[in-house]
Amino acid sequence: MLGAIEAGGTKFVCAVSDDELNIIEKISIPTTEPEETFAQVFDFFDQFDLKAIGIGSFGPIDTNKESSTYGYITSTPKLKWQNTDFQGAFVRRYQVPVGWNTDVNAAALGEVSLGAARDKNSCVYITVGTGIGGGAFINGEPLTGISHPEMGHFYPPKHAEDTYEGCCDFHGSCLEGLASGPAIEGRFGIKAEELGEDHKAWEIEAHYLAHAAMAYTTILSPSCIIFGGGVMNQTHLIEKVRQKFDKLLNHYLQLPSLDEYIILPGLGNEAGIKGSLLLAKRALNA
Amino acid sequence: MLGAIEAGGTKFVCAVSDDELNIIEKISIPTTEPEETFAQVFDFFDQFDLKAIGIGSFGPIDTNKESSTYGYITSTPKLKWQNTDFQGAFVRRYQVPVGWNTDVNAAALGEVSLGAARDKNSCVYITVGTGIGGGAFINGEPLTGISHPEMGHFYPPKHAEDTYEGCCDFHGSCLEGLASGPAIEGRFGIKAEELGEDHKAWEIEAHYLAHAAMAYTTILSPSCIIFGGGVMNQTHLIEKVRQKFDKLLNHYLQLPSLDEYIILPGLGNEAGIKGSLLLAKRALNA
Ligand SMILES: Nc1ncnc2c1ncn2[C@@H]1O[C@H](COP(=O)(O)OP(=O)(O)O)[C@@H](O)[C@H]1O
Ligand SMILES: Nc1ncnc2c1ncn2[C@@H]1O[C@H](COP(=O)(O)OP(=O)(O)O)[C@@H](O)[C@H]1O
Ligand SMILES: [Zn+2]
Ligand SMILES: [Zn+2]
Repeated sequence: MLGAIEAGGTKFVCAVSDDELNIIEKISIPTTEPEETFAQVFDFFDQFDLKAIGIGSFGPIDTNKESSTYGYITSTPKLKWQNTDFQGAFVRRYQVPVGWNTDVNAAALGEVSLGAARDKNSCVYITVGTGIGGGAFINGEPLTGISHPEMGHFYPPKHAEDTYEGCCDFHGSCLEGLASGPAIEGRFGIKAEELGEDHKAWEIEAHYLAHAAMAYTTILSPSCIIFGGGVMNQTHLIEKVRQKFDKLLNHYLQLPSLDEYIILPGLGNEAGIKGSLLLAKRALNA
Repeated sequence: MLGAIEAGGTKFVCAVSDDELNIIEKISIPTTEPEETFAQVFDFFDQFDLKAIGIGSFGPIDTNKESSTYGYITSTPKLKWQNTDFQGAFVRRYQVPVGWNTDVNAAALGEVSLGAARDKNSCVYITVGTGIGGGAFINGEPLTGISHPEMGHFYPPKHAEDTYEGCCDFHGSCLEGLASGPAIEGRFGIKAEELGEDHKAWEIEAHYLAHAAMAYTTILSPSCIIFGGGVMNQTHLIEKVRQKFDKLLNHYLQLPSLDEYIILPGLGNEAGIKGSLLLAKRALNA
Protein backbone atom coordinates (compact mmCIF):
# COMPACT_ATOMS: atom_id res chain seq x y z
CA MET A 1 0.00 0.00 0.00
CA LEU A 2 1.04 3.58 -0.71
CA GLY A 3 0.32 6.54 1.53
CA ALA A 4 0.06 10.19 0.53
CA ILE A 5 -0.43 13.59 2.17
CA GLU A 6 -1.49 16.71 0.34
CA ALA A 7 -0.55 19.24 3.01
CA GLY A 8 -2.29 22.59 2.59
CA GLY A 9 -2.54 25.64 4.75
CA THR A 10 -6.13 24.91 5.78
CA LYS A 11 -6.32 21.11 5.56
CA PHE A 12 -4.26 17.95 5.17
CA VAL A 13 -5.75 15.42 2.75
CA CYS A 14 -4.42 11.92 3.50
CA ALA A 15 -4.99 8.86 1.33
CA VAL A 16 -3.87 5.29 0.88
CA SER A 17 -3.93 3.45 -2.44
CA ASP A 18 -2.92 0.21 -4.08
CA ASP A 19 0.08 0.04 -6.43
CA GLU A 20 -2.08 1.17 -9.33
CA LEU A 21 -2.92 4.36 -7.42
CA ASN A 22 -6.54 3.41 -6.86
CA ILE A 23 -7.47 5.31 -3.70
CA ILE A 24 -8.74 2.96 -0.98
CA GLU A 25 -9.34 5.42 1.84
CA LYS A 26 -9.06 9.17 2.12
CA ILE A 27 -9.57 11.66 4.97
CA SER A 28 -9.25 15.38 5.53
CA ILE A 29 -7.68 16.81 8.69
CA PRO A 30 -7.63 20.51 9.64
CA THR A 31 -4.20 22.19 9.64
CA THR A 32 -3.67 23.38 13.21
CA GLU A 33 -0.18 22.96 14.65
CA PRO A 34 2.38 20.31 13.73
CA GLU A 35 2.13 18.05 16.79
CA GLU A 36 -1.65 17.94 16.77
CA THR A 37 -2.05 17.58 13.01
CA PHE A 38 0.68 14.93 12.72
CA ALA A 39 -0.93 12.93 15.56
CA GLN A 40 -4.14 12.70 13.56
CA VAL A 41 -2.29 11.76 10.39
CA PHE A 42 -0.42 9.04 12.31
CA ASP A 43 -3.74 7.69 13.64
CA PHE A 44 -4.93 7.33 10.07
CA PHE A 45 -1.78 5.80 8.58
CA ASP A 46 -1.16 3.47 11.55
CA GLN A 47 -4.10 1.38 10.35
CA PHE A 48 -2.30 0.38 7.15
CA ASP A 49 0.83 -1.44 6.11
CA LEU A 50 2.57 1.21 4.02
CA LYS A 51 5.45 0.55 1.62
CA ALA A 52 6.12 4.21 0.94
CA ILE A 53 4.67 7.66 1.58
CA GLY A 54 4.55 10.75 -0.62
CA ILE A 55 4.13 14.28 0.71
CA GLY A 56 3.19 17.33 -1.34
CA SER A 57 3.43 20.25 1.06
CA PHE A 58 2.71 23.95 1.31
CA GLY A 59 5.91 25.95 1.73
CA PRO A 60 8.43 27.30 1.46
CA ILE A 61 10.02 23.90 2.09
CA ASP A 62 13.56 22.54 1.85
CA THR A 63 13.88 20.09 -1.07
CA ASN A 64 17.67 20.06 -1.25
CA LYS A 65 18.81 16.55 -0.32
CA GLU A 66 22.22 17.81 0.70
CA SER A 67 20.85 20.34 3.16
CA SER A 68 20.70 19.71 6.90
CA THR A 69 17.10 20.89 6.87
CA TYR A 70 15.97 18.69 3.95
CA GLY A 71 12.35 17.73 4.52
CA TYR A 72 11.55 20.82 6.61
CA ILE A 73 8.91 23.45 6.14
CA THR A 74 11.11 26.54 6.45
CA SER A 75 10.17 30.23 6.41
CA THR A 76 6.40 29.92 6.03
CA PRO A 77 4.20 32.80 7.17
CA LYS A 78 2.29 30.17 9.24
CA LEU A 79 4.41 30.68 12.34
CA LYS A 80 3.66 27.40 14.12
CA TRP A 81 4.92 25.50 11.09
CA GLN A 82 8.22 27.33 10.71
CA ASN A 83 11.25 25.01 10.87
CA THR A 84 9.12 21.86 11.14
CA ASP A 85 10.83 18.60 10.23
CA PHE A 86 7.89 17.21 8.28
CA GLN A 87 9.38 14.50 6.07
CA GLY A 88 11.72 13.33 8.85
CA ALA A 89 8.81 12.77 11.24
CA PHE A 90 7.28 10.29 8.79
CA VAL A 91 10.59 8.57 7.99
CA ARG A 92 11.15 8.02 11.72
CA ARG A 93 7.66 6.72 12.43
CA TYR A 94 7.17 4.42 9.44
CA GLN A 95 10.74 3.51 8.41
CA VAL A 96 9.77 3.53 4.74
CA PRO A 97 10.85 5.74 1.80
CA VAL A 98 9.11 9.13 2.02
CA GLY A 99 8.90 11.25 -1.14
CA TRP A 100 8.91 14.99 -0.51
CA ASN A 101 8.10 17.96 -2.69
CA THR A 102 5.85 21.00 -2.91
CA ASP A 103 2.08 20.66 -3.26
CA VAL A 104 2.26 22.25 -6.69
CA ASN A 105 5.15 20.12 -7.93
CA ALA A 106 3.12 17.12 -6.77
CA ALA A 107 0.09 18.41 -8.69
CA ALA A 108 2.28 18.95 -11.77
CA LEU A 109 3.49 15.35 -11.45
CA GLY A 110 -0.11 14.15 -11.15
CA GLU A 111 -1.18 16.07 -14.23
CA VAL A 112 1.80 15.03 -16.37
CA SER A 113 1.40 11.37 -15.39
CA LEU A 114 -2.36 10.93 -15.28
CA GLY A 115 -4.09 14.21 -16.07
CA ALA A 116 -4.34 16.91 -18.71
CA ALA A 117 -0.64 16.66 -19.63
CA ARG A 118 -0.40 12.87 -19.64
CA ASP A 119 0.66 12.68 -23.30
CA LYS A 120 3.19 15.48 -22.87
CA ASN A 121 6.66 15.46 -21.36
CA SER A 122 6.47 18.66 -19.35
CA CYS A 123 3.95 20.98 -17.74
CA VAL A 124 3.56 23.92 -15.42
CA TYR A 125 0.81 23.64 -12.80
CA ILE A 126 -0.32 26.90 -11.24
CA THR A 127 -2.90 27.28 -8.53
CA VAL A 128 -4.81 30.55 -8.26
CA GLY A 129 -6.45 30.50 -4.85
CA THR A 130 -5.75 32.09 -1.47
CA GLY A 131 -2.21 32.41 -2.77
CA ILE A 132 -0.63 31.74 -6.14
CA GLY A 133 1.87 28.92 -6.43
CA GLY A 134 3.34 27.05 -9.34
CA GLY A 135 5.16 23.81 -9.91
CA ALA A 136 6.65 22.22 -12.98
CA PHE A 137 7.63 18.87 -14.28
CA ILE A 138 10.45 18.99 -16.85
CA ASN A 139 12.78 16.33 -18.29
CA GLY A 140 11.18 13.62 -16.16
CA GLU A 141 11.72 15.47 -12.86
CA PRO A 142 9.84 17.93 -10.69
CA LEU A 143 11.56 21.29 -11.05
CA THR A 144 13.80 22.05 -8.10
CA GLY A 145 16.99 24.04 -8.34
CA ILE A 146 18.60 25.62 -5.31
CA SER A 147 15.14 25.48 -3.80
CA HIS A 148 11.72 25.08 -5.38
CA PRO A 149 10.00 27.65 -7.58
CA GLU A 150 7.78 30.30 -6.03
CA MET A 151 6.07 31.15 -9.29
CA GLY A 152 3.51 33.49 -7.77
CA HIS A 153 6.07 36.01 -6.61
CA PHE A 154 7.52 37.67 -9.71
CA TYR A 155 6.21 41.13 -10.64
CA PRO A 156 4.00 41.40 -13.75
CA PRO A 157 3.32 44.79 -15.40
CA LYS A 158 0.29 46.52 -13.91
CA HIS A 159 -2.94 46.62 -15.90
CA ALA A 160 -3.29 50.17 -17.24
CA GLU A 161 -6.51 50.83 -15.30
CA ASP A 162 -5.55 49.00 -12.12
CA THR A 163 -4.83 51.26 -9.17
CA TYR A 164 -4.84 48.47 -6.55
CA GLU A 165 -1.48 48.37 -4.78
CA GLY A 166 -1.40 44.61 -4.22
CA CYS A 167 -1.66 42.51 -1.07
CA CYS A 168 1.46 40.35 -0.86
CA ASP A 169 3.05 40.84 2.57
CA PHE A 170 6.50 40.61 1.05
CA HIS A 171 6.13 42.26 -2.34
CA GLY A 172 2.89 44.18 -2.57
CA SER A 173 2.31 43.97 -6.30
CA CYS A 174 3.78 40.58 -7.23
CA LEU A 175 1.51 38.18 -9.15
CA GLU A 176 0.04 36.77 -5.93
CA GLY A 177 -0.44 40.29 -4.60
CA LEU A 178 -2.39 41.32 -7.70
CA ALA A 179 -4.22 38.20 -8.86
CA SER A 180 -4.93 35.82 -5.94
CA GLY A 181 -8.48 35.44 -4.62
CA PRO A 182 -7.84 37.90 -1.77
CA ALA A 183 -6.38 40.42 -4.28
CA ILE A 184 -9.57 40.30 -6.34
CA GLU A 185 -11.59 40.84 -3.18
CA GLY A 186 -9.23 43.61 -1.99
CA ARG A 187 -9.52 45.48 -5.29
CA PHE A 188 -13.32 45.48 -5.53
CA GLY A 189 -14.48 44.81 -1.98
CA ILE A 190 -16.51 41.81 -3.19
CA LYS A 191 -15.56 38.14 -2.90
CA ALA A 192 -14.26 36.68 -6.17
CA GLU A 193 -16.97 34.03 -6.22
CA GLU A 194 -19.65 36.73 -6.12
CA LEU A 195 -18.41 38.76 -9.09
CA GLY A 196 -20.46 38.27 -12.26
CA GLU A 197 -18.93 37.05 -15.48
CA ASP A 198 -19.09 40.50 -17.08
CA HIS A 199 -17.42 42.33 -14.19
CA LYS A 200 -14.31 44.33 -15.07
CA ALA A 201 -12.46 42.15 -12.52
CA TRP A 202 -12.09 39.32 -15.00
CA GLU A 203 -10.47 41.39 -17.69
CA ILE A 204 -7.90 42.56 -15.13
CA GLU A 205 -7.45 39.03 -13.78
CA ALA A 206 -6.94 37.68 -17.29
CA HIS A 207 -4.29 40.34 -17.90
CA TYR A 208 -2.24 39.13 -14.93
CA LEU A 209 -2.69 35.43 -15.62
CA ALA A 210 -1.76 35.96 -19.28
CA HIS A 211 1.44 37.71 -18.18
CA ALA A 212 2.10 34.75 -15.90
CA ALA A 213 1.64 32.37 -18.82
CA MET A 214 3.97 34.57 -20.88
CA ALA A 215 6.68 34.46 -18.21
CA TYR A 216 6.38 30.68 -17.73
CA THR A 217 6.42 30.15 -21.51
CA THR A 218 9.48 32.25 -22.20
CA ILE A 219 11.45 31.14 -19.13
CA LEU A 220 10.52 27.44 -18.91
CA SER A 221 9.10 26.44 -22.29
CA PRO A 222 6.67 23.83 -20.93
CA SER A 223 4.42 21.68 -23.14
CA CYS A 224 1.37 23.20 -21.49
CA ILE A 225 0.28 25.45 -18.62
CA ILE A 226 -2.43 24.16 -16.30
CA PHE A 227 -4.41 26.67 -14.24
CA GLY A 228 -6.09 25.25 -11.13
CA GLY A 229 -7.27 26.60 -7.76
CA GLY A 230 -10.47 28.19 -6.50
CA VAL A 231 -10.44 31.29 -8.72
CA MET A 232 -10.43 29.10 -11.85
CA ASN A 233 -13.92 27.94 -10.91
CA GLN A 234 -14.85 30.97 -12.99
CA THR A 235 -15.10 28.82 -16.09
CA HIS A 236 -15.11 31.76 -18.52
CA LEU A 237 -11.73 32.94 -17.23
CA ILE A 238 -9.44 30.45 -18.99
CA GLU A 239 -10.60 31.59 -22.44
CA LYS A 240 -10.03 35.24 -21.47
CA VAL A 241 -6.49 34.29 -20.42
CA ARG A 242 -5.88 32.59 -23.78
CA GLN A 243 -7.02 35.66 -25.69
CA LYS A 244 -4.80 38.05 -23.72
CA PHE A 245 -1.86 35.65 -23.97
CA ASP A 246 -2.28 35.40 -27.74
CA LYS A 247 -1.89 39.19 -28.01
CA LEU A 248 1.13 39.27 -25.69
CA LEU A 249 2.92 36.45 -27.51
CA ASN A 250 2.17 38.01 -30.91
CA HIS A 251 3.13 34.83 -32.82
CA TYR A 252 6.69 34.94 -31.56
CA LEU A 253 6.87 31.22 -30.78
CA GLN A 254 5.29 28.17 -32.35
CA LEU A 255 3.00 26.72 -29.71
CA PRO A 256 0.18 24.18 -29.80
CA SER A 257 -3.30 25.59 -30.29
CA LEU A 258 -3.99 27.66 -27.18
CA ASP A 259 -6.93 25.53 -26.05
CA GLU A 260 -4.43 22.68 -25.72
CA TYR A 261 -1.73 24.87 -24.22
CA ILE A 262 -3.49 26.98 -21.56
CA ILE A 263 -5.77 24.47 -19.87
CA LEU A 264 -7.66 23.38 -16.75
CA PRO A 265 -6.54 20.38 -14.62
CA GLY A 266 -7.51 16.97 -15.97
CA LEU A 267 -7.62 15.50 -12.45
CA GLY A 268 -9.76 18.33 -11.08
CA ASN A 269 -9.09 18.68 -7.37
CA GLU A 270 -7.37 15.28 -7.18
CA ALA A 271 -4.18 16.47 -8.91
CA GLY A 272 -2.42 17.10 -5.58
CA ILE A 273 -3.27 13.83 -3.83
CA LYS A 274 -2.67 11.68 -6.94
CA GLY A 275 0.63 13.48 -7.46
CA SER A 276 1.57 12.80 -3.84
CA LEU A 277 0.83 9.09 -4.34
CA LEU A 278 3.13 9.25 -7.35
CA LEU A 279 5.80 10.81 -5.12
CA ALA A 280 5.42 7.74 -2.87
CA LYS A 281 5.84 5.43 -5.84
CA ARG A 282 8.92 7.32 -7.04
CA ALA A 283 10.43 7.20 -3.55
CA LEU A 284 9.90 3.43 -3.49
CA ASN A 285 11.64 2.97 -6.83
CA ALA A 286 14.44 5.45 -6.17
CA MET B 1 39.36 15.64 -31.56
CA LEU B 2 36.19 17.59 -30.77
CA GLY B 3 34.75 20.33 -32.94
CA ALA B 4 32.48 23.19 -31.84
CA ILE B 5 30.56 26.06 -33.38
CA GLU B 6 29.26 29.05 -31.47
CA ALA B 7 26.84 30.34 -34.07
CA GLY B 8 25.88 33.98 -33.54
CA GLY B 9 24.00 36.49 -35.63
CA THR B 10 27.14 38.38 -36.62
CA LYS B 11 29.83 35.68 -36.49
CA PHE B 12 30.44 31.96 -36.22
CA VAL B 13 33.26 31.01 -33.84
CA CYS B 14 34.62 27.54 -34.71
CA ALA B 15 37.11 25.61 -32.60
CA VAL B 16 38.70 22.19 -32.27
CA SER B 17 39.97 20.78 -29.00
CA ASP B 18 41.44 17.66 -27.44
CA ASP B 19 39.34 15.45 -25.15
CA GLU B 20 40.19 17.67 -22.17
CA LEU B 21 38.68 20.63 -24.02
CA ASN B 22 42.00 22.38 -24.55
CA ILE B 23 41.36 24.49 -27.64
CA ILE B 24 43.87 23.70 -30.40
CA GLU B 25 42.64 25.99 -33.15
CA LYS B 26 39.91 28.58 -33.35
CA ILE B 27 38.59 30.85 -36.11
CA SER B 28 35.86 33.41 -36.58
CA ILE B 29 33.72 33.50 -39.74
CA PRO B 30 31.19 36.23 -40.57
CA THR B 31 27.53 35.17 -40.58
CA THR B 32 26.31 35.82 -44.14
CA GLU B 33 23.98 33.19 -45.61
CA PRO B 34 23.87 29.49 -44.80
CA GLU B 35 25.55 28.07 -47.92
CA GLU B 36 28.42 30.51 -47.85
CA THR B 37 28.99 30.40 -44.10
CA PHE B 38 28.74 26.60 -43.89
CA ALA B 39 31.26 26.28 -46.78
CA GLN B 40 33.81 28.21 -44.75
CA VAL B 41 33.08 26.18 -41.61
CA PHE B 42 33.50 22.96 -43.63
CA ASP B 43 36.87 24.22 -44.96
CA PHE B 44 38.02 24.68 -41.37
CA PHE B 45 36.71 21.37 -39.94
CA ASP B 46 37.81 19.32 -43.00
CA GLN B 47 41.39 19.71 -41.81
CA PHE B 48 40.75 17.68 -38.68
CA ASP B 49 39.67 14.20 -37.72
CA LEU B 50 36.61 14.92 -35.58
CA LYS B 51 34.94 12.43 -33.23
CA ALA B 52 31.99 14.69 -32.47
CA ILE B 53 30.75 18.23 -33.00
CA GLY B 54 28.78 20.56 -30.72
CA ILE B 55 26.72 23.49 -31.98
CA GLY B 56 25.39 26.32 -29.81
CA SER B 57 23.23 28.38 -32.15
CA PHE B 58 21.27 31.62 -32.29
CA GLY B 59 17.58 30.96 -32.69
CA PRO B 60 14.79 30.25 -32.40
CA ILE B 61 15.88 26.69 -33.16
CA ASP B 62 14.17 23.30 -33.00
CA THR B 63 15.61 21.19 -30.14
CA ASN B 64 12.81 18.61 -30.01
CA LYS B 65 14.33 15.28 -31.05
CA GLU B 66 10.93 13.94 -32.08
CA SER B 67 10.23 16.82 -34.45
CA SER B 68 10.72 16.54 -38.21
CA THR B 69 12.62 19.84 -38.10
CA TYR B 70 14.95 18.89 -35.22
CA GLY B 71 18.27 20.61 -35.76
CA TYR B 72 16.80 23.50 -37.77
CA ILE B 73 16.97 27.21 -37.21
CA THR B 74 13.26 28.04 -37.45
CA SER B 75 11.48 31.40 -37.31
CA THR B 76 14.50 33.68 -36.90
CA PRO B 77 14.20 37.34 -37.93
CA LYS B 78 17.35 36.72 -40.05
CA LEU B 79 15.42 35.77 -43.18
CA LYS B 80 18.16 33.89 -45.00
CA TRP B 81 18.51 31.56 -42.05
CA GLN B 82 14.85 30.68 -41.65
CA ASN B 83 14.16 26.94 -41.92
CA THR B 84 17.85 26.03 -42.25
CA ASP B 85 18.77 22.44 -41.44
CA PHE B 86 21.91 23.34 -39.50
CA GLN B 87 22.63 20.27 -37.37
CA GLY B 88 21.66 17.91 -40.22
CA ALA B 89 24.18 19.52 -42.58
CA PHE B 90 26.98 18.63 -40.16
CA VAL B 91 25.69 15.12 -39.47
CA ARG B 92 25.63 14.43 -43.22
CA ARG B 93 29.08 15.82 -43.91
CA TYR B 94 30.99 14.37 -40.97
CA GLN B 95 28.96 11.26 -40.00
CA VAL B 96 29.69 11.83 -36.32
CA PRO B 97 27.45 12.66 -33.34
CA VAL B 98 26.47 16.35 -33.46
CA GLY B 99 25.23 17.98 -30.24
CA TRP B 100 22.71 20.77 -30.79
CA ASN B 101 21.34 23.46 -28.51
CA THR B 102 20.96 27.20 -28.19
CA ASP B 103 23.98 29.47 -27.81
CA VAL B 104 22.81 30.43 -24.32
CA ASN B 105 22.10 26.88 -23.17
CA ALA B 106 25.63 26.05 -24.39
CA ALA B 107 27.01 28.99 -22.40
CA ALA B 108 25.06 27.84 -19.33
CA LEU B 109 26.56 24.37 -19.77
CA GLY B 110 30.04 25.90 -20.05
CA GLU B 111 29.57 27.95 -16.91
CA VAL B 112 28.08 25.13 -14.84
CA SER B 113 30.82 22.71 -15.91
CA LEU B 114 33.92 24.91 -15.98
CA GLY B 115 32.98 28.47 -15.08
CA ALA B 116 31.40 30.58 -12.38
CA ALA B 117 28.82 27.88 -11.51
CA ARG B 118 31.19 24.91 -11.60
CA ASP B 119 30.58 23.97 -7.97
CA LYS B 120 26.80 24.35 -8.36
CA ASN B 121 24.22 22.04 -9.90
CA SER B 122 22.20 24.61 -11.82
CA CYS B 123 22.51 28.06 -13.34
CA VAL B 124 20.80 30.55 -15.58
CA TYR B 125 23.00 32.28 -18.17
CA ILE B 126 21.64 35.48 -19.62
CA THR B 127 23.27 37.57 -22.32
CA VAL B 128 22.49 41.28 -22.47
CA GLY B 129 23.71 42.45 -25.86
CA THR B 130 22.10 43.24 -29.21
CA GLY B 131 19.27 41.06 -27.95
CA ILE B 132 18.58 39.41 -24.61
CA GLY B 133 18.62 35.63 -24.42
CA GLY B 134 18.81 33.19 -21.57
CA GLY B 135 19.63 29.55 -21.10
CA ALA B 136 19.63 27.31 -18.09
CA PHE B 137 21.16 24.13 -16.88
CA ILE B 138 19.02 22.25 -14.35
CA ASN B 139 19.09 18.69 -12.99
CA GLY B 140 22.06 17.80 -15.18
CA GLU B 141 20.40 18.90 -18.43
CA PRO B 142 20.09 22.04 -20.53
CA LEU B 143 16.58 23.36 -20.09
CA THR B 144 14.39 22.51 -23.06
CA GLY B 145 10.69 21.84 -22.81
CA ILE B 146 8.40 22.02 -25.80
CA SER B 147 11.03 24.27 -27.28
CA HIS B 148 13.87 26.22 -25.67
CA PRO B 149 13.44 29.21 -23.39
CA GLU B 150 13.30 32.71 -24.83
CA MET B 151 14.02 34.40 -21.54
CA GLY B 152 14.35 37.89 -22.97
CA HIS B 153 10.72 38.08 -24.09
CA PHE B 154 8.59 38.25 -20.96
CA TYR B 155 7.24 41.65 -19.92
CA PRO B 156 8.72 43.26 -16.78
CA PRO B 157 6.97 46.18 -15.04
CA LYS B 158 8.05 49.54 -16.45
CA HIS B 159 10.39 51.72 -14.43
CA ALA B 160 8.29 54.58 -13.00
CA GLU B 161 10.22 57.26 -14.89
CA ASP B 162 10.70 55.35 -18.12
CA THR B 163 8.61 56.63 -21.03
CA TYR B 164 10.47 54.62 -23.71
CA GLU B 165 8.03 52.33 -25.50
CA GLY B 166 10.49 49.52 -26.18
CA CYS B 167 12.07 48.22 -29.38
CA CYS B 168 11.18 44.52 -29.68
CA ASP B 169 9.65 43.92 -33.12
CA PHE B 170 7.27 41.38 -31.63
CA HIS B 171 6.46 42.77 -28.19
CA GLY B 172 7.59 46.36 -27.89
CA SER B 173 8.19 46.49 -24.16
CA CYS B 174 9.38 42.97 -23.33
CA LEU B 175 12.69 42.69 -21.44
CA GLU B 176 14.69 42.70 -24.68
CA GLY B 177 12.67 45.66 -25.92
CA LEU B 178 13.46 47.65 -22.77
CA ALA B 179 16.92 46.53 -21.67
CA SER B 180 19.00 45.31 -24.65
CA GLY B 181 21.90 47.45 -25.94
CA PRO B 182 19.74 48.92 -28.74
CA ALA B 183 16.99 49.74 -26.18
CA ILE B 184 19.45 51.75 -24.08
CA GLU B 185 20.55 53.59 -27.21
CA GLY B 186 16.94 54.07 -28.36
CA ARG B 187 15.93 55.57 -25.00
CA PHE B 188 18.74 58.11 -24.73
CA GLY B 189 20.04 58.51 -28.28
CA ILE B 190 23.56 57.59 -27.11
CA LYS B 191 25.30 54.24 -27.51
CA ALA B 192 25.35 52.20 -24.31
CA GLU B 193 29.17 52.06 -24.30
CA GLU B 194 29.33 55.85 -24.29
CA LEU B 195 27.08 56.46 -21.28
CA GLY B 196 28.96 57.40 -18.10
CA GLU B 197 28.68 55.37 -14.94
CA ASP B 198 26.50 58.03 -13.27
CA HIS B 199 24.02 58.31 -16.11
CA LYS B 200 20.36 57.69 -15.20
CA ALA B 201 20.41 54.91 -17.83
CA TRP B 202 22.06 52.49 -15.42
CA GLU B 203 19.51 52.87 -12.70
CA ILE B 204 16.79 52.09 -15.26
CA GLU B 205 18.81 49.20 -16.72
CA ALA B 206 19.38 47.76 -13.23
CA HIS B 207 15.62 47.94 -12.57
CA TYR B 208 14.89 45.74 -15.59
CA LEU B 209 17.71 43.29 -15.01
CA ALA B 210 16.70 42.96 -11.34
CA HIS B 211 13.15 42.14 -12.41
CA ALA B 212 14.62 39.57 -14.80
CA ALA B 213 16.59 38.03 -11.92
CA MET B 214 13.41 38.05 -9.83
CA ALA B 215 11.44 36.21 -12.53
CA TYR B 216 14.19 33.62 -13.10
CA THR B 217 14.56 33.10 -9.35
CA THR B 218 10.88 32.58 -8.64
CA ILE B 219 10.14 30.53 -11.75
CA LEU B 220 13.30 28.41 -12.06
CA SER B 221 15.05 28.53 -8.70
CA PRO B 222 18.60 28.26 -10.11
CA SER B 223 21.73 28.11 -7.93
CA CYS B 224 22.97 31.35 -9.51
CA ILE B 225 22.24 33.81 -12.31
CA ILE B 226 25.09 34.74 -14.62
CA PHE B 227 24.85 37.98 -16.61
CA GLY B 228 27.02 38.13 -19.74
CA GLY B 229 26.97 40.01 -23.07
CA GLY B 230 28.25 43.38 -24.25
CA VAL B 231 26.17 45.59 -21.93
CA MET B 232 27.65 43.87 -18.86
CA ASN B 233 31.03 45.38 -19.80
CA GLN B 234 29.69 48.21 -17.63
CA THR B 235 31.36 46.68 -14.59
CA HIS B 236 29.42 48.81 -12.08
CA LEU B 237 26.12 47.45 -13.38
CA ILE B 238 26.11 44.02 -11.71
CA GLU B 239 26.24 45.57 -8.21
CA LYS B 240 23.35 47.91 -9.09
CA VAL B 241 21.35 44.86 -10.21
CA ARG B 242 22.09 43.11 -6.89
CA GLN B 243 20.88 46.10 -4.89
CA LYS B 244 17.61 46.43 -6.82
CA PHE B 245 17.04 42.67 -6.65
CA ASP B 246 17.55 42.67 -2.90
CA LYS B 247 14.72 45.21 -2.54
CA LEU B 248 12.41 43.31 -4.88
CA LEU B 249 13.01 39.97 -3.15
CA ASN B 250 12.54 41.53 0.29
CA HIS B 251 13.99 38.47 2.11
CA TYR B 252 11.25 36.21 0.82
CA LEU B 253 13.60 33.36 -0.06
CA GLN B 254 16.84 32.12 1.44
CA LEU B 255 19.47 32.65 -1.21
CA PRO B 256 23.27 32.64 -1.15
CA SER B 257 24.92 36.02 -0.60
CA LEU B 258 24.01 38.10 -3.63
CA ASP B 259 27.60 38.51 -4.80
CA GLU B 260 27.66 34.74 -5.22
CA TYR B 261 24.18 34.58 -6.70
CA ILE B 262 24.04 37.39 -9.29
CA ILE B 263 27.39 37.11 -11.02
CA LEU B 264 29.49 37.65 -14.13
CA PRO B 265 30.64 34.75 -16.35
CA GLY B 266 33.66 32.82 -15.09
CA LEU B 267 34.72 31.89 -18.62
CA GLY B 268 34.39 35.48 -19.90
CA ASN B 269 33.63 35.40 -23.61
CA GLU B 270 34.64 31.72 -23.91
CA ALA B 271 31.48 30.41 -22.19
CA GLY B 272 29.73 29.79 -25.52
CA ILE B 273 32.54 27.99 -27.35
CA LYS B 274 33.56 25.91 -24.31
CA GLY B 275 29.91 25.01 -23.76
CA SER B 276 29.65 23.98 -27.42
CA LEU B 277 32.68 21.71 -27.01
CA LEU B 278 30.90 20.19 -24.02
CA LEU B 279 27.85 19.62 -26.23
CA ALA B 280 30.16 17.67 -28.56
CA LYS B 281 31.43 15.60 -25.67
CA ARG B 282 27.90 14.90 -24.43
CA ALA B 283 26.82 13.87 -27.96
CA LEU B 284 29.73 11.44 -28.09
CA ASN B 285 28.78 9.85 -24.78
CA ALA B 286 25.03 9.80 -25.43
N1 LIG C 1 -16.24 30.16 -7.82
C1 LIG C 1 -15.23 30.96 -7.50
N2 LIG C 1 -14.97 32.05 -8.25
C2 LIG C 1 -13.96 32.86 -7.96
N3 LIG C 1 -13.15 32.71 -6.92
C3 LIG C 1 -13.35 31.65 -6.14
C4 LIG C 1 -14.38 30.71 -6.38
N4 LIG C 1 -14.31 29.75 -5.43
C5 LIG C 1 -13.28 30.09 -4.61
N5 LIG C 1 -12.69 31.23 -5.04
C6 LIG C 1 -11.57 31.94 -4.43
O1 LIG C 1 -10.47 31.06 -4.31
C7 LIG C 1 -9.76 31.27 -3.10
C8 LIG C 1 -9.57 29.94 -2.39
O2 LIG C 1 -8.78 29.12 -3.20
P1 LIG C 1 -8.70 27.55 -3.08
O3 LIG C 1 -7.83 27.08 -4.18
O4 LIG C 1 -10.10 27.02 -3.03
O5 LIG C 1 -8.05 27.27 -1.66
P2 LIG C 1 -6.54 27.40 -1.11
O6 LIG C 1 -5.78 28.33 -2.00
O7 LIG C 1 -6.71 27.96 0.27
O8 LIG C 1 -6.00 26.00 -1.14
C9 LIG C 1 -10.54 32.30 -2.31
O9 LIG C 1 -9.86 33.55 -2.38
C10 LIG C 1 -11.89 32.39 -3.02
O10 LIG C 1 -12.38 33.72 -3.02
N1 LIG D 1 31.24 48.65 -22.80
C1 LIG D 1 29.94 48.58 -23.10
N2 LIG D 1 29.03 49.20 -22.32
C2 LIG D 1 27.71 49.14 -22.60
N3 LIG D 1 27.22 48.50 -23.67
C3 LIG D 1 28.07 47.87 -24.48
C4 LIG D 1 29.46 47.86 -24.25
N4 LIG D 1 30.04 47.12 -25.23
C5 LIG D 1 29.04 46.70 -26.04
N5 LIG D 1 27.85 47.14 -25.59
C6 LIG D 1 26.53 46.94 -26.21
O1 LIG D 1 26.33 45.54 -26.35
C7 LIG D 1 25.64 45.26 -27.56
C8 LIG D 1 26.38 44.17 -28.30
O2 LIG D 1 26.34 43.02 -27.51
P1 LIG D 1 27.33 41.79 -27.67
O3 LIG D 1 27.04 40.84 -26.60
O4 LIG D 1 28.74 42.34 -27.72
O5 LIG D 1 27.04 41.20 -29.12
P2 LIG D 1 25.83 40.31 -29.68
O6 LIG D 1 24.65 40.46 -28.77
O7 LIG D 1 25.57 40.86 -31.04
O8 LIG D 1 26.37 38.91 -29.70
C9 LIG D 1 25.51 46.57 -28.32
O9 LIG D 1 24.18 47.05 -28.23
C10 LIG D 1 26.46 47.51 -27.59
O10 LIG D 1 25.93 48.84 -27.56
ZN1 LIG E 1 4.87 38.10 -3.30
ZN1 LIG F 1 10.17 40.50 -27.31
